[in-house]
Amino acid sequence: MPKIAHRGEMMPPSPIRKLVPFAEAAKKRGTKVYHLNIGQPDIETPKAIMDAVRHADMKVLEYSHSAGFESYRKKLVEYYKRNNIDVNHNQIIVTTGGSEAILFGVMSCMDPGDEIIIPEPFYANYNGFAISAGVKVVPIPSAIETGFALPPIEAFEKAITPRTKAIMICNPNNPTGYLYSMQELEVLRDICLKHDLFLFSDEAYREFCYDGNKHISALSIPGLEQHAILMDTISKRYSACGGRIGAFVTKNESVLTTAMKFAQARLSPPSFAQILGEAAVDLPLNYFDEVHAEYNKRRDLLVSRLNAMDGVFCPNPGGAFYAMAKLPVKDTERFCQWLLEEFSYEGATVMMAPAAGFYATPGCGKDEVRLAYVLNLEDINHAMDCLEQALKAYPNN
Amino acid sequence: MPKIAHRGEMMPPSPIRKLVPFAEAAKKRGTKVYHLNIGQPDIETPKAIMDAVRHADMKVLEYSHSAGFESYRKKLVEYYKRNNIDVNHNQIIVTTGGSEAILFGVMSCMDPGDEIIIPEPFYANYNGFAISAGVKVVPIPSAIETGFALPPIEAFEKAITPRTKAIMICNPNNPTGYLYSMQELEVLRDICLKHDLFLFSDEAYREFCYDGNKHISALSIPGLEQHAILMDTISKRYSACGGRIGAFVTKNESVLTTAMKFAQARLSPPSFAQILGEAAVDLPLNYFDEVHAEYNKRRDLLVSRLNAMDGVFCPNPGGAFYAMAKLPVKDTERFCQWLLEEFSYEGATVMMAPAAGFYATPGCGKDEVRLAYVLNLEDINHAMDCLEQALKAYPNN
Repeated sequence: MPKIAHRGEMMPPSPIRKLVPFAEAAKKRGTKVYHLNIGQPDIETPKAIMDAVRHADMKVLEYSHSAGFESYRKKLVEYYKRNNIDVNHNQIIVTTGGSEAILFGVMSCMDPGDEIIIPEPFYANYNGFAISAGVKVVPIPSAIETGFALPPIEAFEKAITPRTKAIMICNPNNPTGYLYSMQELEVLRDICLKHDLFLFSDEAYREFCYDGNKHISALSIPGLEQHAILMDTISKRYSACGGRIGAFVTKNESVLTTAMKFAQARLSPPSFAQILGEAAVDLPLNYFDEVHAEYNKRRDLLVSRLNAMDGVFCPNPGGAFYAMAKLPVKDTERFCQWLLEEFSYEGATVMMAPAAGFYATPGCGKDEVRLAYVLNLEDINHAMDCLEQALKAYPNN
Repeated sequence: MPKIAHRGEMMPPSPIRKLVPFAEAAKKRGTKVYHLNIGQPDIETPKAIMDAVRHADMKVLEYSHSAGFESYRKKLVEYYKRNNIDVNHNQIIVTTGGSEAILFGVMSCMDPGDEIIIPEPFYANYNGFAISAGVKVVPIPSAIETGFALPPIEAFEKAITPRTKAIMICNPNNPTGYLYSMQELEVLRDICLKHDLFLFSDEAYREFCYDGNKHISALSIPGLEQHAILMDTISKRYSACGGRIGAFVTKNESVLTTAMKFAQARLSPPSFAQILGEAAVDLPLNYFDEVHAEYNKRRDLLVSRLNAMDGVFCPNPGGAFYAMAKLPVKDTERFCQWLLEEFSYEGATVMMAPAAGFYATPGCGKDEVRLAYVLNLEDINHAMDCLEQALKAYPNN
């Protein structure tokens, strides 16, 4: 029998998948499972943009342009302008989700053996794209004690080698919820300019910033025009994860030309959800106010409930809809499995993502979990009741 | 300024893109351009399946399962059964177009430096996926004189090295239209078993077989269960190219497990078009009869018109909707550009794909073109009038 690729063996399992069978078994036993483990928002996709797809008048479901419908890219220019990102429609390649934007970035800018520096913990799927491209992820630690602020410039300098080609950030951050400040972005700019590195900026959660702080895009940092590549998606912005529409945006002409070759090789991004994305730019500007207020309340509830528990520490996340918490247990993977396998409180339990899977450094994050506040307030409250009771009941620490 | 990847420089341009600006200029001058250059069918997407998307009752456009909606995969099992392919729904991973199925195959089964043997001419985008994965394409020649039949077994044996991991076919073939016989597939089986190679089978055009010949899937060849990987798509089958829905199908458990890791890294395939694909399996079984009859007439007209021209040879393609023709010119790339730049007949001209881009061996296919018969009979007739006149008028050969 022919053998699979070594590359395939290197692909790490998702930090959540391992627990899925235990969650399914819990549900079969009749236990309610509060899913705080994945970033699938419960917010309704705006009806107006779903209707745009329903009413689209297409006789033939054709390929779009490999860079996406021109009309959609022109609409996106408006959207980005409103967000202080000044680009034209030829600087945008519509992608199949943010995932493909990341893949295009790695494929276009990095050769096998090249290195990319990423502050850890980081979105676990970056590993998959790096392995696909034969690229080495070099993690540098950020810490829960500082709320996962950007590591100091010295940490970057120490990690840079002749093979370093790029730094990758997620802003606001998944899994930490950290929102980078202008000062931090300027540190990144200085490093990128000094060492001639690309800055890959995953801004999937741009709209989700709290406490009056504004999101700053890598594409609006002066001086970084030729270095910054924005990896974007409509998944979280409009609760449209299943559309699989993202964007690869840069002002660097050679990167654009190269990424277009990869875009042409896969022909086109999905047509239906481009129609949805185009309609979304015309949503009333106050659309986000309500969504934003809802997530803000959820965050406040989740974080205050967590910090009120004995031995739990959860820094207040400035953005996205994730929080990282340190729990008074030795191994959150075992704890999370135990929650699903053996525990219930008033007929319910909680599913969370053990944080070790978001770290590249072995042994890190073993007492941390990631929680996604994608449930309504009542459910979050119940889920926190469960967690509080579970921590009291957990025996084998 | 940071530099793009060497990998990006290696990506070949599409065999068609170079001519696109000339086609646009021709249209600006008021010349009608008959597009025989791309495989975008003009056939209407069945209204019933477009309606399934229009009437889908989704409040939240959620991620689907990374392998695709279970309901869709179960429907696909029915579809495959009707096509003599016996698989269960866990052996199917729904992909973002056939393109992603090919990428998953290369990524899961091959490491950088590994080799894949492909009879040439072949679908040019295979190059892109191979370059993405760092894999080397080893072409072996098929010839227009034999209608692009499978090269003899000796040609495969000669090309095999210790790094050979797979053979790839497209059946029926794009760009040649060749439909492989059971005898040819048995040759492939014997080679794959002898040398323990995967057989990647791109069957995008399964429904398009003519002259009463039946399509035989690589997945229904006895003995090849652990070696065969089917790369499929609904793009051509239902004229739904913009849906971006395909499938990766195999009975090999380790390949499935590995491909699922790549599927999980990109989260999910597009949701809307999965609904369309699921509805398509329930189309009346005679749906293809009309489509099939239409393409059959187009093929017959195109091929007979071509062969009636002085110095032109076009083998009769057994499937798909492409034909390769040998023209009495030295360099079809120059000829195709001249057609767009300098020629018109009764206000119209023809756009075709120069065949050199479908060959990996430099210098091959320079007097050949690929024609896609995706226009109605009247347009094909006019297009052939243009080509006939053009060949008479072409000066600088």
